[in-house]
Amino acid sequence: MKIIDIREIAVPLNSSLRNSVFDFSQMKTSVVAVITDVIREGKPVVGYAFNSTGRYACGGQMRMRFIPRILNSDPDNLIDFDRNNFDPEKIFSVMMEGEKPGGHSDRSVGIGTIEVAIWDAIAKIEEKPAFRSISDRYNPGGAKPKMFVYVGGGWYAPNKGIPELLDEMKSYLDMGYTQLKIKIGGESISNDVKRLEAVLKLLNNDGNNLAVDANCGLTREAAFDYAKVLSPYNLRWYEEATDPLDFALMSDLAEIYSPPLATGENLFSTQDVRNLIQYGGLRTDHDVIQIDPPQSYGFVSVARTIKMLKTFGWSENSLMPHGGNQMSLHVAAGLGMLLCESYPDTFGIFSGFSDDAEIIDGHLTINENLPGIGFEAQSGIYEVMSKLSNN
Amino acid sequence: MKIIDIREIAVPLNSSLRNSVFDFSQMKTSVVAVITDVIREGKPVVGYAFNSTGRYACGGQMRMRFIPRILNSDPDNLIDFDRNNFDPEKIFSVMMEGEKPGGHSDRSVGIGTIEVAIWDAIAKIEEKPAFRSISDRYNPGGAKPKMFVYVGGGWYAPNKGIPELLDEMKSYLDMGYTQLKIKIGGESISNDVKRLEAVLKLLNNDGNNLAVDANCGLTREAAFDYAKVLSPYNLRWYEEATDPLDFALMSDLAEIYSPPLATGENLFSTQDVRNLIQYGGLRTDHDVIQIDPPQSYGFVSVARTIKMLKTFGWSENSLMPHGGNQMSLHVAAGLGMLLCESYPDTFGIFSGFSDDAEIIDGHLTINENLPGIGFEAQSGIYEVMSKLSNN
Repeated sequence: MKIIDIREIAVPLNSSLRNSVFDFSQMKTSVVAVITDVIREGKPVVGYAFNSTGRYACGGQMRMRFIPRILNSDPDNLIDFDRNNFDPEKIFSVMMEGEKPGGHSDRSVGIGTIEVAIWDAIAKIEEKPAFRSISDRYNPGGAKPKMFVYVGGGWYAPNKGIPELLDEMKSYLDMGYTQLKIKIGGESISNDVKRLEAVLKLLNNDGNNLAVDANCGLTREAAFDYAKVLSPYNLRWYEEATDPLDFALMSDLAEIYSPPLATGENLFSTQDVRNLIQYGGLRTDHDVIQIDPPQSYGFVSVARTIKMLKTFGWSENSLMPHGGNQMSLHVAAGLGMLLCESYPDTFGIFSGFSDDAEIIDGHLTINENLPGIGFEAQSGIYEVMSKLSNN
Repeated sequence: MKIIDIREIAVPLNSSLRNSVFDFSQMKTSVVAVITDVIREGKPVVGYAFNSTGRYACGGQMRMRFIPRILNSDPDNLIDFDRNNFDPEKIFSVMMEGEKPGGHSDRSVGIGTIEVAIWDAIAKIEEKPAFRSISDRYNPGGAKPKMFVYVGGGWYAPNKGIPELLDEMKSYLDMGYTQLKIKIGGESISNDVKRLEAVLKLLNNDGNNLAVDANCGLTREAAFDYAKVLSPYNLRWYEEATDPLDFALMSDLAEIYSPPLATGENLFSTQDVRNLIQYGGLRTDHDVIQIDPPQSYGFVSVARTIKMLKTFGWSENSLMPHGGNQMSLHVAAGLGMLLCESYPDTFGIFSGFSDDAEIIDGHLTINENLPGIGFEAQSGIYEVMSKLSNN
């Protein structure tokens, strides 16, 4: 049983979206195919993944470092002999050989994307959906096949006013979603409040159904100004006010803002998340920690982060994956996280779940009959992936 | 005045050295040439740099993101019109366009290496050594052309015992160095103490002349064991015991270890260094903060880090650059840092200073007549650099 090849292609996001800090116009994401010699249904098993959104493609690092380390390794060093499958922990270790401590994001995106593709292969070899393979190893009995999903939307875009924002939000409610998120910090605070209040009306003025996201774009002063203005709405959460590494500011913010805060998608290692909870002033009973699995070393690393969190009184029920895609859905369900994000059509083929996914009262029930992460049921992205593997 | 081209080549370190964590056998470093249309001495000015050592070459990121952002920018957006030169702060900003907050090391090495090459060009245009151009902008009157340099050596290598270690150390003393550093954590604690005591004898048993470096390779328990054993020697510093982001552990260590501690070369942004000094328990009066300029966004960013440090009661006199090369020498001298590292021959052509550099009583005096960073006077690396630029 061995890995025959690992291929990468950088695909443009083709997005004109904008948050408070930057746009995605030049961004590409890495699509990866891990080709094995294991045969299922008459064909070699291939694992797929992409590097989520918000961080650039990283084929250079993959080809110079991570792919040759795997392909040059003794194949037996990559195997879980008990399960007769690939061993994601061993493969993670092999990818880390020759790497200096600290400085995670240089490698965590490339390693994480390959690692998630390995999980797709592992689950296909087991003929299980990926969340079951994840749960078997790290969360026995705790999988959540019926996962609560909310929509991360409400982006700024050219010529997008409140009527267009409401059309967008209504379309999500029509799809069956009940919890929504909009961007803040890209317009004046008074305009953002108008946007917020307009959307809240659609949601029966229940703040618990609406989150806001500043994408780290606020100054310290603006972060506090928004906190004061937002407080009375009791929103689901107030996400990433400022620099994601400014734990001192986060702690100050938690002093004056009682409703839930959320952050973490721009931390890339278990140790960075540990610093956040040790110094960021977050509250175990209602704040939300967000992490992007393919960008932060993959599923093994997220399982280790949960283990670390538990030693500090946190649980997987305070954790959610950044990114609305099949990968985040399966890792959230497998590890029993709080909820999962959804991007119904935000990032083109890098958005959304399987083509037949149905949202009922805010929940998505994962198809138990589709092995792996399930990109095969998502026609847009699978076209790119299958070309990469010649499958 | 414009930048015509930016070229990168990945060159193997060809090193068999080992520290407590990893070896450098597979590592390559990026060499960069920034080609301008400014003419000096009849030829276009070209700025050079390399990405220091310990982090991998990153031409992929440069070619996909940082180089096109500079070359596609309106050339006037890159100019310091007051000085009639390129503006390193503006060029830094242009390279950061479209980048998401946090996750620094993915870009800080590529951006920093290009930024340092820009400084080489800036200084050549001004016909000054780079440390003068740096000092003029960020530290007027505070340059230190006569810089104290110590040797970062004492690596583990196959078949290297105490006699070979002492030969290495004696060779540094013969060159004129007075302060040395050896690796620890790659052998048993008792063997490491034997190595340490043997070297101390060469140094009149004055701990102030010897530092030790664990390269983040120790467990929490081992870090404390070493601290207890090392304390009585009053060494110059005890460097990077464990995970560079484990500020809580560093703070605990500072509670029980009174002599100087040192860390920071694996932090890549001003905000990470701020977290270190806010949470790491370091003592302004004698601990040492180390930062690698080409790996952490370049000289502008280091100047900003010093500005930040001053607001917390620290000064440039507690700071030193990681890496023993012309780049670290000039930024240390220009910003008036505590001292500079030296690798007399550790990393082949990526080691050492100009070929005619003379160490007198531990000090190196920079040649005021050589414009720029001075790679032109370092024949080994200049051969690679000049081929890259066809100069």
